[in-house]
Amino acid sequence: MAPTALGSDSEGDVKALLPDLPRGPLEAYRARASFCWKEMVLFLEGEDVLRLKKTIFSLLESDPLFAGPRGSSELSLEDYRELNFLRFRRLLEYDFLRPEELAQRPLCALALVECLGMYDWSLANKFFLHMLIFGCFALTELSHGSNTKGIRTTAHYDPATQEFILHSPDFEAAKFWVGNMGKTATHAVVFAQLFTPDALCHGIHAFIVQIRDPKTLLPMPGVLVGDIGRKLGQNGLDNGFAMFHQVRVPRKDLLNRTGDVTPEGTYVTPFKDDRQRFGAALGGLSMGRVSIVGMSVANLKQAVAIALRFSATREQFGPTQQKEVPVLEYQLQQWRLLPYLAAAYALDHFSKSLFLDLVELQRGLLMNDRSPRQAELGREIHALASSGKPLASWTTQRGIQECREACGGHGYLAVNRLGVLRDDNDPNCTYEGDNSVLLQQTSQFLLGLLERGVCGSADCQSPLGSVDFLQLYPNILHRTVTRLSTQDCLDSSAPLAAYEWLVCHLLQKSTQQVRTHLQTGSSNFEARNNSQVFHCQPLALAFLELTVLRRFHAHTQGSSVPAQLQPVLGRLCALYGLWALNQHMALLYRGGYFSGPQAGQMIEHCILDLCTQLKDDAVALVDAIAPPDFILASPIARADGELYKHLWGTVLQQTGVLERPSWWAQFSAHKPTVGSLKPKL
Amino acid sequence: MAPTALGSDSEGDVKALLPDLPRGPLEAYRARASFCWKEMVLFLEGEDVLRLKKTIFSLLESDPLFAGPRGSSELSLEDYRELNFLRFRRLLEYDFLRPEELAQRPLCALALVECLGMYDWSLANKFFLHMLIFGCFALTELSHGSNTKGIRTTAHYDPATQEFILHSPDFEAAKFWVGNMGKTATHAVVFAQLFTPDALCHGIHAFIVQIRDPKTLLPMPGVLVGDIGRKLGQNGLDNGFAMFHQVRVPRKDLLNRTGDVTPEGTYVTPFKDDRQRFGAALGGLSMGRVSIVGMSVANLKQAVAIALRFSATREQFGPTQQKEVPVLEYQLQQWRLLPYLAAAYALDHFSKSLFLDLVELQRGLLMNDRSPRQAELGREIHALASSGKPLASWTTQRGIQECREACGGHGYLAVNRLGVLRDDNDPNCTYEGDNSVLLQQTSQFLLGLLERGVCGSADCQSPLGSVDFLQLYPNILHRTVTRLSTQDCLDSSAPLAAYEWLVCHLLQKSTQQVRTHLQTGSSNFEARNNSQVFHCQPLALAFLELTVLRRFHAHTQGSSVPAQLQPVLGRLCALYGLWALNQHMALLYRGGYFSGPQAGQMIEHCILDLCTQLKDDAVALVDAIAPPDFILASPIARADGELYKHLWGTVLQQTGVLERPSWWAQFSAHKPTVGSLKPKL
Repeated sequence: MAPTALGSDSEGDVKALLPDLPRGPLEAYRARASFCWKEMVLFLEGEDVLRLKKTIFSLLESDPLFAGPRGSSELSLEDYRELNFLRFRRLLEYDFLRPEELAQRPLCALALVECLGMYDWSLANKFFLHMLIFGCFALTELSHGSNTKGIRTTAHYDPATQEFILHSPDFEAAKFWVGNMGKTATHAVVFAQLFTPDALCHGIHAFIVQIRDPKTLLPMPGVLVGDIGRKLGQNGLDNGFAMFHQVRVPRKDLLNRTGDVTPEGTYVTPFKDDRQRFGAALGGLSMGRVSIVGMSVANLKQAVAIALRFSATREQFGPTQQKEVPVLEYQLQQWRLLPYLAAAYALDHFSKSLFLDLVELQRGLLMNDRSPRQAELGREIHALASSGKPLASWTTQRGIQECREACGGHGYLAVNRLGVLRDDNDPNCTYEGDNSVLLQQTSQFLLGLLERGVCGSADCQSPLGSVDFLQLYPNILHRTVTRLSTQDCLDSSAPLAAYEWLVCHLLQKSTQQVRTHLQTGSSNFEARNNSQVFHCQPLALAFLELTVLRRFHAHTQGSSVPAQLQPVLGRLCALYGLWALNQHMALLYRGGYFSGPQAGQMIEHCILDLCTQLKDDAVALVDAIAPPDFILASPIARADGELYKHLWGTVLQQTGVLERPSWWAQFSAHKPTVGSLKPKL
Repeated sequence: MAPTALGSDSEGDVKALLPDLPRGPLEAYRARASFCWKEMVLFLEGEDVLRLKKTIFSLLESDPLFAGPRGSSELSLEDYRELNFLRFRRLLEYDFLRPEELAQRPLCALALVECLGMYDWSLANKFFLHMLIFGCFALTELSHGSNTKGIRTTAHYDPATQEFILHSPDFEAAKFWVGNMGKTATHAVVFAQLFTPDALCHGIHAFIVQIRDPKTLLPMPGVLVGDIGRKLGQNGLDNGFAMFHQVRVPRKDLLNRTGDVTPEGTYVTPFKDDRQRFGAALGGLSMGRVSIVGMSVANLKQAVAIALRFSATREQFGPTQQKEVPVLEYQLQQWRLLPYLAAAYALDHFSKSLFLDLVELQRGLLMNDRSPRQAELGREIHALASSGKPLASWTTQRGIQECREACGGHGYLAVNRLGVLRDDNDPNCTYEGDNSVLLQQTSQFLLGLLERGVCGSADCQSPLGSVDFLQLYPNILHRTVTRLSTQDCLDSSAPLAAYEWLVCHLLQKSTQQVRTHLQTGSSNFEARNNSQVFHCQPLALAFLELTVLRRFHAHTQGSSVPAQLQPVLGRLCALYGLWALNQHMALLYRGGYFSGPQAGQMIEHCILDLCTQLKDDAVALVDAIAPPDFILASPIARADGELYKHLWGTVLQQTGVLERPSWWAQFSAHKPTVGSLKPKL
């Protein structure tokens, strides 16, 4: 291992935060690493976050309440929900971060999400739903998800009693999928179409409605509330449904930031039109999407940690039958896993930096900043979050599946935890906006720039700089490449330049596609829908990949990077960029950016070369992002690398593992008569 | 609906086999179909299979033992295993197909796999494991999976007692993952390294070992046997482990087809060397792989049936807020799902035809056919099965995930069954050979042809014709295309020609790559390993995609196809071919097969155009491959299309759905004191 550069005053402190890892079979790879993993942790997290993580992980590990089962499959639904509730209550007692601390140290807030989520997303989500709002947040209905404007719950104002009457016209309008509503929420923020006595509908508004008696947890009169049942994952979280039968709430329980009703029943709003008001009402959704980027990254980190530690200790085949080699030595295995390790690093940085951008936006909102920059910042973050969530959740979902398969049969064993990760990550692709629907927000943002004529001019600027390269839009479109050097690939300049062309090209083609549809008689609705598949959707994804790559590249080149870490971080950046770009190679050739076989071959060559260079660093890179063994909770991936001892030990610890089945007499006493019930065909 | 052509004598019979589907919201699409779904069923299955399927499905539906829960998550492990065992026993009583019937009507055997698997793979696999061998089949060990030759269980022959002594040297050599071993198997076929008294090792051989007392289900002396615990899916099947401590078995319990030991302890074998013997011992593995193609297809059929019926009845957004449209009307949704529908049809045909090829091979084996054709047939089927299993299982795994996401939140609800399909299909990627490892068998087969110099000559022929196109190898390599016509794409001639070039190109490049490695000093082992990622693996997949496409194309053009079905089958074939080919577009351009943007644009255009053409047929196409509602068991995808009624009804049927939690007092009586345990940071 390279000598550590963890010098300075706080050396002792940091040492206590980062004890040495236990010795064992993983040492062989650790000894070959080009850097010290502790220095990497310090660089990635900083001391503040490190200290918080250590505290949280240690408390969870030493509290027996957190020692039991977690994940979807080991408990009955009822038991898992109870356990999750008890753990949630304990978290309130631990109170790791007060709201005022969260505001002061935003990256600690993100770390708290990561720590609790790595433990169990059911718990983290229950906790944060309760932190964000009171009880639960009832927007979607049985028949309306993505199209939230179409919800059918009504709220009629009755001036006689100064109350709103909440009502579900039928079960298709039942609130459905509401987190925390299934078992424990006593109050709900219910979205409904607001009607004034003049029978005018003013669009959707939010009302606070009590749904259960907190003393008994029984439903309030007129409220039908229940649990939607087992999901594919996150089963500790009680998602629920509710129907309202003429439920009356006082006028003051309308959340009136975007619109209000006078005692007499007149509708008043600070906004000019419904569209604007709706935008403002849902404008706060970036927080959820940005959080999901972080949630996905936390899952990806754990999945690659499991698969790479396994691959470094699992030996199979070899140059001779006597000598087997770790499966990590196989190029195919490296290529399956190391790009996802690189993606975890790149997306982790993106997650943190976008979160800090969002904090800046929210500070502006709190300060009532009405500057054009503030408005533009809001739009830019909306565009980045709307594609960041899809990219991160999809990359992770595919990565987990690859990790599962790369661990073979042992990856399919529940105790090794890749199943829980896959099941718990899956909804990240759907909630807070279906990925495919959400990407349209980003492509519309980009198409709008071209439409307004700012592309190609110095006016093309955004607060975070993500679209500034479009100042050179016409020039970039003319770029072509016939030869790439190794250097261009390894310092990420080749993928960055190629991505710029790709985004410009897709922007141009998407605009043309929409126009063609409009010119041949399509409505706006149709023209947009029929330009998604090969145009707007890849445009949004390519733009976000470019942004992730650009930010990670700048970060790894920054002056704050310890010299020892620069080479390995540069390699991760190049691998992520080339691997992501390689998915778009067809368009890069077809559109004429690349010509001749050399460029494509060079990119493939560099991807494999980077894999070879990174495989000896892989274990140390994973050590720097993996949670402690107690949290990772995967016998095939413990820090000491004793794969078989832990797996065997865990299997033997399971209930009744060596016992004959309780129903053994069914086997022994009741022998079937083969064919006794054979049907006539 | 188009008029049915179900004329002829057996019309009444067939009508009874295929009753009309219940009326409801799906009628709108059914009325627009270009063909009669009943005619499609008859074409796909034939009357024999149809009758068998109907019998099986009806008996399962009317037997209360099969009415309860299935799939991974609703039962405890113990209860699910008991239920699965009781159902297995009932299947023995039903005895749907006797072994002699299986041999006579091979497609009925495949249909039996499909019917039972669509019901529950845990049950199907338990049933077929018990049918194929006696008890269980113990090959893999804790530390050896893919590399089966490296297993470490030993069998020493003792001439004094004429017994073999089976022994596991340590727990890393414990048999592990053995299906049926966890709870019920009384006997195992155990693979071990055979040693004669002269201390020579003769490689792996199989022994019948009693592991449990059938009267008590308690383990036999010296046998440690247990259950490996919960898996990601198929939890009704009891996978187990076993260690043997000097367990003695009589000499006759060596399965001696490939090698035997005389009473005195001399090893005798009809084979010349270990390698050949090992090949013969594992030669029977094609059956497992071919079956997995069928298993995967059965899962894909169900997933697309769920997602497409959902998409045809789920309405979201629309040209105006008042008028919503089925999500199937969106091009993006069509593009996500319809290619998987086409893949289900194409792979279903491949599965059936490859199964019939395998039956031919096995008939030859039984007849002791030692002709060169028989040997070549074995090699060709081995190559097709070794890439067919990966292609089918991966296509299905990705397809299920796409279907899950395309159904949004409701796809994430366990009752809708996409989770079970994903979990139960997942091991198809791993067992009977990890997909990535297995693909090397196919690429080695193809590389061997080039090495032996048969490519480009009339000698390049195989019994099933899958490599005959390589007779034109040099000519095909010179093909280039600058323009494609719509017709070329829609009649599948364009993708077929492009695939031929792609396979030849990858074959040439893979050979060059291996040679380059060898010339620069790599060993054979290294040269082969370092040529997988961008060469041998895509070669094997492209070859198999070509084979699937070619077979499906020939099938849809055959004279037996009813005229009414030809257009829709042709569209499915073209969509599968173009969609699969589109993944390889980068190489088609880079390698110079395509030049200029037109070809790529035309392929994209045709994919979307075919989606539009097929969307009105999608429901009828799904009706023809979906099992009855009882088997599909997905409330969002019942044949009447009453999405919300069934979903709501099912949710309300769940245990305790409206009850307050049993642990409500934990909520009401024990309020937490926030921060009472707050740690100091």
